[in-house]
Amino acid sequence: MSEVTSTDLYEVTMALSYLREDMRAPATFSLFVRDLPPGRGFLVAAGLEGVLDHLSRYRVSGSDVEEFAEVLRRPVADLEPLRGLSFDGEVRAVPEGRLVFAGEPLLEVTAPLPQAQLVETYLLSLVVHQTAIASKAARCVLAGAGRPLVDFSLRRTHGPEAGLRAARLCALVGFAGTSNVAGAHLWGVPAAGTMAHSYVEAFPSEEAAFRAFARTHPGPVTFLVDTYDTDRGVATAARVFADLGLGPGCGIRLDSGDLGAQARRARTALDAAGLQDVRIIASGGLDEYGVDRLVRDGAPIDAYAVGSKVGTAADAPYLDAAYKLVEYDARPVMKLSAAKVTAPGPKQVFRGPGLRDVIGLANEAPPEGTEPLLRTVMRGGLRTDPPDTLAAARARFETDLAALPEESRRLTDPVPPLPSASTRLTALTTVVRHRVESGASGAGRQTT
Amino acid sequence: MSEVTSTDLYEVTMALSYLREDMRAPATFSLFVRDLPPGRGFLVAAGLEGVLDHLSRYRVSGSDVEEFAEVLRRPVADLEPLRGLSFDGEVRAVPEGRLVFAGEPLLEVTAPLPQAQLVETYLLSLVVHQTAIASKAARCVLAGAGRPLVDFSLRRTHGPEAGLRAARLCALVGFAGTSNVAGAHLWGVPAAGTMAHSYVEAFPSEEAAFRAFARTHPGPVTFLVDTYDTDRGVATAARVFADLGLGPGCGIRLDSGDLGAQARRARTALDAAGLQDVRIIASGGLDEYGVDRLVRDGAPIDAYAVGSKVGTAADAPYLDAAYKLVEYDARPVMKLSAAKVTAPGPKQVFRGPGLRDVIGLANEAPPEGTEPLLRTVMRGGLRTDPPDTLAAARARFETDLAALPEESRRLTDPVPPLPSASTRLTALTTVVRHRVESGASGAGRQTT
Repeated sequence: MSEVTSTDLYEVTMALSYLREDMRAPATFSLFVRDLPPGRGFLVAAGLEGVLDHLSRYRVSGSDVEEFAEVLRRPVADLEPLRGLSFDGEVRAVPEGRLVFAGEPLLEVTAPLPQAQLVETYLLSLVVHQTAIASKAARCVLAGAGRPLVDFSLRRTHGPEAGLRAARLCALVGFAGTSNVAGAHLWGVPAAGTMAHSYVEAFPSEEAAFRAFARTHPGPVTFLVDTYDTDRGVATAARVFADLGLGPGCGIRLDSGDLGAQARRARTALDAAGLQDVRIIASGGLDEYGVDRLVRDGAPIDAYAVGSKVGTAADAPYLDAAYKLVEYDARPVMKLSAAKVTAPGPKQVFRGPGLRDVIGLANEAPPEGTEPLLRTVMRGGLRTDPPDTLAAARARFETDLAALPEESRRLTDPVPPLPSASTRLTALTTVVRHRVESGASGAGRQTT
Repeated sequence: MSEVTSTDLYEVTMALSYLREDMRAPATFSLFVRDLPPGRGFLVAAGLEGVLDHLSRYRVSGSDVEEFAEVLRRPVADLEPLRGLSFDGEVRAVPEGRLVFAGEPLLEVTAPLPQAQLVETYLLSLVVHQTAIASKAARCVLAGAGRPLVDFSLRRTHGPEAGLRAARLCALVGFAGTSNVAGAHLWGVPAAGTMAHSYVEAFPSEEAAFRAFARTHPGPVTFLVDTYDTDRGVATAARVFADLGLGPGCGIRLDSGDLGAQARRARTALDAAGLQDVRIIASGGLDEYGVDRLVRDGAPIDAYAVGSKVGTAADAPYLDAAYKLVEYDARPVMKLSAAKVTAPGPKQVFRGPGLRDVIGLANEAPPEGTEPLLRTVMRGGLRTDPPDTLAAARARFETDLAALPEESRRLTDPVPPLPSASTRLTALTTVVRHRVESGASGAGRQTT
């Protein structure tokens, strides 16, 4: 798959039109989430590394041009103006890991109009997905309240590529590990895993399975104890641990039924067998709500594995995001569609204490005591900094999360902070709205 | 990304253990969806082509072995038994496009145990996602009731790779086109697209934008009319169409507000301008419910574009699917975990008239008047047939859909058909359950 043709057709037809009309002046597009999904008190900015990789590589090849022509059913010659086009613009962005809220630009792209337009679809596809997943995973971290979390989502993500990204995003918000081998390797995250029910079933007995696993894997092992009867499974695991002199670092995994009650019984049984060091890991349909319930109930569970619901951000699998033109050729623009009004002009987010944010214009001076969130990360199509690290992104996430007000942190009915608009942004919006309403939608009067 | 390491760690540790224990006898795993998500009356089987591609290519390379060793923090020598392992087993599967229901195997893999285990995660990641998306898209087709549908989902899917698959799945269930250029090219689907609000905003006026677009793109064009004021946008579009002598094949797109009311006003205005041939296309947050409401209201909309909610299967973004060992070394096995009991043995689905299905054993004779759904599609690691075509899958979908009872077809509160179990499957389940309960979970008694 060519990254260049992995785009909506209209990006191509619009870019072609811009080139034919010689509209190559700088355009600024702003990528933001209009509204947070219900049940979200914050979003975690994510996807920027992929965006910068994509823009760095972006170049319309000869075969891309042929593919455009084919799907448009037009002669290749018509598409020639696009050949060789690459991205040499500027990107200002909120670094990954920072918390962001409704209406705040996650990134702004400034480039000759055709370039800035062409990259829209791919950028949205990266940023929307990754911000949705990181935000869901972050809520699990809140629910876990310090207990280790592991990403088990690969089998449920929207394909293996999405699973690879999920492993990274879970690590970004502080998960302790991932079951995803490629993810662990690529992102330098600890790999975690136990055994499946099939493993137990393939042996003549549960005990035979546990003993064989321990034989093959020297060092700490985790046994899955709920294939047949959980209490008996725990007893069998305890016997094998004791026989083999195993304990510290070992664990049992519960994957079905009433996890809290089973964990209590398992803890009692393990402790009675002198296996205080054996950990209990819970999995099976968990998300932040399930983890929270178990943590609040005081279930003796040492680590939680989450999968399906987190890897697909099941209750908010997409975000209401937009990539909107805010300025073309030094002229601020805006849209007036019902319920989809956009604010004009390149922007900046000024973050005050307690994550009280002001959305202002990019060229405003930061209000006293605030920090600008968007930084220039690409200039002339080149990264301004070395690639970001997961550790740095995680540190930013943790800092912002610590400053998030309680009403926005809570899992149920959170109230997200509502950014305000700066005086200058409000004034510009009024001026542009007036200009647009009085002219631009009419019969072609020049309004710049 | 190596497809081989794009797997859960436990597949690797289990496979290694099987090899060390010399457990290489044939195993059969069954991939099925335990329960349909709420609001689904049927699922559309999808993902098999990708599965067969993956299995055909599967081979553990030297670098895969090194990656396994790295994430397991073990010497490469420990992982050597996996080097060169490829898939030479058999796959029986329900062809793509057929409707399937709770508990029915979508595919069964029979191969030496280590092989059949290693491919679990990747197969689930392909089949679960694709079946979820195809099933959601199919409901849009039902809602459209014959009106053309277009896939606009790429910017919202979980990454561009998921978008590429979504384009295929939408076409599989009968969509008329996709906005995804790579998807249109790869799957031979008509590409569709109009223009973005940014295009209109980049010009001094809406009319200037429309005229420029028509200049660049000879032939039929579609104008987006809701950037500023929809009624005025429609009037402007009508004027440009009339001036340029355009009409047949052209269209306007509505993307916000009350789509039904705007479409009515737009139709009236276009007709009054003699533009009966200009089509009205609606988009903006639509899924099967939105399309259904507009269709039932008699909105004069000629085509619907769906995106976010369909490309992420937003109300059911994952399925409760499992890949369960059902037989090892000619011994049927089953799991007894609370609420997750699995039926033992390799299976077949026998489809009767009206999609009344019987789940039986693979070696049963088909009951009178039924058709077996699972076919052998891979033997000795090689496809038994040439790659399937999208047209063939679509034909199968349409045939099954036509036979689906009304109560399962309806969009709201559908009642999915409930497959029954054959007498022989029920008998085997009883026998295996008794065997397992009386022995296998205990202290290692041999129960085969």
